[in-house]
Amino acid sequence: MAAPMRGMSVLRQAFQGLVRPSGGQVCRQVQHRCYSTPGHVQVDMNSETGVATVRLNRPPVNSLNLDVLTELSIALEKLETDKSCKAMVLASAAPGIFSAGLDILEMYQSTPERCVAFWRALQDAWLNLYGSRLVTMAAIEGHSPAGGCLLAMSCDYRVMAEGKFQIGLNETKLGIVAPFWFTDVMLNTIGHRETEKALQLGALYSAQQALSIGLVDKVVPLAEVMPTVEGELKNWLQIPAAARVITKTSMRKAVLDRLRSQKEKDAQFFADFINRDSVQKSLGMYIASLQKKKN
Amino acid sequence: MAAPMRGMSVLRQAFQGLVRPSGGQVCRQVQHRCYSTPGHVQVDMNSETGVATVRLNRPPVNSLNLDVLTELSIALEKLETDKSCKAMVLASAAPGIFSAGLDILEMYQSTPERCVAFWRALQDAWLNLYGSRLVTMAAIEGHSPAGGCLLAMSCDYRVMAEGKFQIGLNETKLGIVAPFWFTDVMLNTIGHRETEKALQLGALYSAQQALSIGLVDKVVPLAEVMPTVEGELKNWLQIPAAARVITKTSMRKAVLDRLRSQKEKDAQFFADFINRDSVQKSLGMYIASLQKKKN
Amino acid sequence: MAAPMRGMSVLRQAFQGLVRPSGGQVCRQVQHRCYSTPGHVQVDMNSETGVATVRLNRPPVNSLNLDVLTELSIALEKLETDKSCKAMVLASAAPGIFSAGLDILEMYQSTPERCVAFWRALQDAWLNLYGSRLVTMAAIEGHSPAGGCLLAMSCDYRVMAEGKFQIGLNETKLGIVAPFWFTDVMLNTIGHRETEKALQLGALYSAQQALSIGLVDKVVPLAEVMPTVEGELKNWLQIPAAARVITKTSMRKAVLDRLRSQKEKDAQFFADFINRDSVQKSLGMYIASLQKKKN
Repeated sequence: MAAPMRGMSVLRQAFQGLVRPSGGQVCRQVQHRCYSTPGHVQVDMNSETGVATVRLNRPPVNSLNLDVLTELSIALEKLETDKSCKAMVLASAAPGIFSAGLDILEMYQSTPERCVAFWRALQDAWLNLYGSRLVTMAAIEGHSPAGGCLLAMSCDYRVMAEGKFQIGLNETKLGIVAPFWFTDVMLNTIGHRETEKALQLGALYSAQQALSIGLVDKVVPLAEVMPTVEGELKNWLQIPAAARVITKTSMRKAVLDRLRSQKEKDAQFFADFINRDSVQKSLGMYIASLQKKKN
Repeated sequence: MAAPMRGMSVLRQAFQGLVRPSGGQVCRQVQHRCYSTPGHVQVDMNSETGVATVRLNRPPVNSLNLDVLTELSIALEKLETDKSCKAMVLASAAPGIFSAGLDILEMYQSTPERCVAFWRALQDAWLNLYGSRLVTMAAIEGHSPAGGCLLAMSCDYRVMAEGKFQIGLNETKLGIVAPFWFTDVMLNTIGHRETEKALQLGALYSAQQALSIGLVDKVVPLAEVMPTVEGELKNWLQIPAAARVITKTSMRKAVLDRLRSQKEKDAQFFADFINRDSVQKSLGMYIASLQKKKN
Repeated sequence: MAAPMRGMSVLRQAFQGLVRPSGGQVCRQVQHRCYSTPGHVQVDMNSETGVATVRLNRPPVNSLNLDVLTELSIALEKLETDKSCKAMVLASAAPGIFSAGLDILEMYQSTPERCVAFWRALQDAWLNLYGSRLVTMAAIEGHSPAGGCLLAMSCDYRVMAEGKFQIGLNETKLGIVAPFWFTDVMLNTIGHRETEKALQLGALYSAQQALSIGLVDKVVPLAEVMPTVEGELKNWLQIPAAARVITKTSMRKAVLDRLRSQKEKDAQFFADFINRDSVQKSLGMYIASLQKKKN
């Protein structure tokens, strides 16, 4: 597999996270009701405002494995049916990273059954997020490549920290291809031309670049990300919810339905593709090269 | 129904116009052939240039009721078959307003039959405008919310007065939802991402904001709107008409056909939705709140 | 046919090129393998970098007749199957022009059989270019109207020389209509609103204007076009080719398939349209007017 150039350090970090996962999630805002699952997704519900903050919490880089995705799906389902919940802020409990995307270790030397289970968990988490009735906002306080970018794009609004952080669907740089529904979400966000360029190049954008092509909606200093999200939420929560939800659903229906109608086929395709000898070999070499650099 | 925040004063004005309509339309440019209908749509045909100016004329805010829409449809049909007519400028005879959009009184305590007739008139006016063979230009010399924004977006080109005026599809702010063909026209104008944000928020934009997202094509001082439209028309009228019309039609066909193929279903859906008890109650409270503020 | 206003001088040049073709193509970079066809398409393959430079070479304005298009198709097919070739730069050997577009003489007093053959050659050249597995870049060092703009838009990336040169699909100015697949490519490049305006007006843009609407990706001084293309190529060639090709193909498939599924119908439509008495008369008058101005 050809060496991907930019975004490498992020992915190296991501990988390091995968092989040396640290536990430790803390529910930081103790004054609020907190019903995080035991693992890697921390949910903090402000019953006064109806705003839930969902923090990915799998240090160091929030890589998305089967457990994280399953917990995220469950957390989103709970919020969806919680009548007191009006909005959801997706954020990270790990400094400097929103999410490094899918956990490569789920793809390497894994059984086809595990691959399919992993992919279904990703599909479900995404269907829950992109199709949510809630106002959804991404507070991007760190790097957000690949699957991290997908989660951010699937919210209604994105605020990103200025500085060194990058965001984008960089799959081609690793020799893999973004699934069609990743592409669909990006098309709905930045249009056809920018998507074609972004995906062919596996481009990772600075916050300013992301703002200029519409990949994020606002760029502010790191410390201002959360206050900015909260300020923006006020505008969105003024809108009568029923009308807003019908509007949102009707605009996202085509893209949601496209995956819904072929979930199993899409999961099977992923499992088959990943388990090809050539792909396994590439992934193995990639992981080995990262471990070597780490040591 | 939650209280809509911005754009309220425009809509209040709109409502006041509805309950206290004033008559008085004048054909201002007497040197030209003038075949306005007796009521609320004033048509002024310049036989030298082949440009018809169509002014909405239902003071104070040009709210669109069954009569206005029927007259607009008929006026557009006449111009469409008038071989001397090459272009049409859509404007307003009422100061400070392009059009406040659909007349809420057509939706409150109305019979299902009236609702269907009203909606058909809106469909026909829009099909005539969006599918017109003429060069169509919107001279937006005032506020242009909701249905006013739809009419403007359905023209080939939009010039808006700078200053305090606002434009946008603000339906969700009132707790209602823009029909799918409003959405389709906006998608063709500002793309998917901006449309999703605009419709979820019911956003009303200043002229400068509208320019920056492509919702209007030019912003000039109020007194320059008409001269700018006339100057721009010269460019459009230099193009061989047959080629221009084929081009325009082919690009708008999908959106036009989508409504054409389900006109009755769409009208019936509107009538059913509006006559729900909950919607009638909301509209009643809304109208009462406006009357209270007015007194 | 109404007189087209802007872009006239370019097209006049184009026509002059057609009636007074000059021969003389030189393979300018002799240090490289050079397998240009005997005629009007010059291919220069750099075996070190894997980059082929394909230069249109039908002075003075590279108008695209049956021969040029056939040679271009063959050249593209050869590169497509040449495993050492990774990228292709489309450029011009004629100063001041990228390509003036389709050769009008192929449309005037031609037999229906010739018209169909001409159109098939255009379809094939475009299918080969837009669907190419190679990284494709347009080095636009001169005017690029109509078919010239189509070729440029069909590449993956466009660098244009700043200055007086213009680019756009100006068909309506000549009283003709861009085929649906020209429109599809433009929609994928600059979006719906800009395409509708561009095609209705037959607009020709300066390099700066083209940059601002996304019709080209970079604008540099004339002498910097080729070095800029080469620099940009380095980014694209770092991407693992298999993943890039799958990504590109999946994003262009819908538009490619739309033509593939109706090639014969599209060619027959063109031949029928062009051979109408009214169109032939218009083309005859147009050619006569150009010859008159030339003398």
